[in-house]
Amino acid sequence: MGKRLAEPVSGEPTPALRAVAKYRVLFADCDPMRVMYYGSYFRLLEIGRAELFRAFGHAFSCYIARGLYLAVTEAQCRYWRPAFYDDELEILAGLTEVSGVRLRIDYLVKKSGGETVATAFTRHAVVNEQGRPVRLPAELRALLQEAVPAPAFGGDHRST
Amino acid sequence: MGKRLAEPVSGEPTPALRAVAKYRVLFADCDPMRVMYYGSYFRLLEIGRAELFRAFGHAFSCYIARGLYLAVTEAQCRYWRPAFYDDELEILAGLTEVSGVRLRIDYLVKKSGGETVATAFTRHAVVNEQGRPVRLPAELRALLQEAVPAPAFGGDHRST
Amino acid sequence: MGKRLAEPVSGEPTPALRAVAKYRVLFADCDPMRVMYYGSYFRLLEIGRAELFRAFGHAFSCYIARGLYLAVTEAQCRYWRPAFYDDELEILAGLTEVSGVRLRIDYLVKKSGGETVATAFTRHAVVNEQGRPVRLPAELRALLQEAVPAPAFGGDHRST
Amino acid sequence: MGKRLAEPVSGEPTPALRAVAKYRVLFADCDPMRVMYYGSYFRLLEIGRAELFRAFGHAFSCYIARGLYLAVTEAQCRYWRPAFYDDELEILAGLTEVSGVRLRIDYLVKKSGGETVATAFTRHAVVNEQGRPVRLPAELRALLQEAVPAPAFGGDHRST
Repeated sequence: MGKRLAEPVSGEPTPALRAVAKYRVLFADCDPMRVMYYGSYFRLLEIGRAELFRAFGHAFSCYIARGLYLAVTEAQCRYWRPAFYDDELEILAGLTEVSGVRLRIDYLVKKSGGETVATAFTRHAVVNEQGRPVRLPAELRALLQEAVPAPAFGGDHRST
Repeated sequence: MGKRLAEPVSGEPTPALRAVAKYRVLFADCDPMRVMYYGSYFRLLEIGRAELFRAFGHAFSCYIARGLYLAVTEAQCRYWRPAFYDDELEILAGLTEVSGVRLRIDYLVKKSGGETVATAFTRHAVVNEQGRPVRLPAELRALLQEAVPAPAFGGDHRST
Repeated sequence: MGKRLAEPVSGEPTPALRAVAKYRVLFADCDPMRVMYYGSYFRLLEIGRAELFRAFGHAFSCYIARGLYLAVTEAQCRYWRPAFYDDELEILAGLTEVSGVRLRIDYLVKKSGGETVATAFTRHAVVNEQGRPVRLPAELRALLQEAVPAPAFGGDHRST
Repeated sequence: MGKRLAEPVSGEPTPALRAVAKYRVLFADCDPMRVMYYGSYFRLLEIGRAELFRAFGHAFSCYIARGLYLAVTEAQCRYWRPAFYDDELEILAGLTEVSGVRLRIDYLVKKSGGETVATAFTRHAVVNEQGRPVRLPAELRALLQEAVPAPAFGGDHRST
């Protein structure tokens, strides 16, 4: 299993996170408390990791075309401040853990140019069309070795 | 193309519609106006047609197992009254049009034991895994011939 | 009641529609047929009308700040072609009908630089915080008189 | 701050959790991997806690009528097995931590009569209409004292 680089700290983007997308809060995202519904944040995390991988030059659609998916094995979100209708949010994301078959991605959602709204992480396993775990393809591993700070690779990636 | 049996009339379930499901409105369904979001109704329609077909003894999952789907080609919803958080709604649905390759389903959503909230219809084409239109399998057509009032079958179903 | 300017024609954006937003299809939007779920399109329509009004210089949030909402009274969508995961879509929208208390907005969703995926319309009533219909405020009416081709105004707007 | 009663263990409902609802997986819930989308589980958690409180005799709607909400401050979900279209799921939920202003609710989602699909928890703060934290009303605290095993109450609830 890989080693965790960093714990997201409230209000402080960790160095490993980069701004990857903006998002405008919709009516569809909000609830009767007039704030973004807690479950709506998980769409934002999806946008964050999709744009992170696209920025790496490897959009998820390339992997899907080869029958590979990043199944979510765990998701966690902490809500620091409410987001309101029509707020423009900024999504930061970063790979923070990599091993032969697993990834961890960290996220920070903030008001554009402002305060932290939520911090989150997701853990993923690489799976095939049948949902069976498979090892990261060499191509994706090479990409990650370039994209991620060296210490993010767990000890076991050398033996893969 | 099949012939349309009935137009849903506000507040009046048409004879062709039957109660198929109940639904409790969630925070997730509502918006900052504190009413059910207009787009959330389309989930209710999905529940309506799934339970309608299950009541026919032919759950959609049986068709999916054979690589057949009912693709939506048109959806329309009219909103008569707002639904609020925690309201218990009743979903009525009925097949109102059938031809060799197409179906129309009508819906009425009302407060349990009360007033009409929305009326809607969806049109569907039978498609295969690749999304290509295919004719209704004989088994499904036989089912529909039993389930639907005779005039709902368009003239072209005899030539299939 | 206002007069309808134009019927959306498959594949042909009507002159009244303008490109207002791009949208990247998410996993969250798709279904097991591996296409965008029919209900997900209604989020895109919301984005379309929000950006249309923002382009007019009157974002919905200004109206909400004054306790006014555009309640949806009817929504209709026709699905011409499937949209797939990661497709980049373009959303066109336009005001096509206006009267003292009601609006109709038409939409066209297409693949970026490509074919029509869906055409749709929504009808709206202006309501207050309690959901009661109210007349369009003069400010909004003035805006619409500039933004919309003259014939879109129904005869009754002069008597308001 | 309250004391945590129990850690959900994979596949093993903790004694504190009780079956509160069933849920049929919709097309709307799934994604192109043909499994329930990771973000869709948070609707199920909402159903779980709503029905848990209803079973306590205190539906959330009663609190909302008094201007009180349970804002989510943290949500976490672990995905053990995929859920597929039309699966019937069972939702278990239980209050596992209570203090003067905060709650923790634990969940387990499983196939009806079968294996664990997901385990999760949410943390909540009691807030008013303006989103400001408020203490649990005496009525809700009395309810919780009956509903929850005694050790779930943190030491500070006596000082309220």
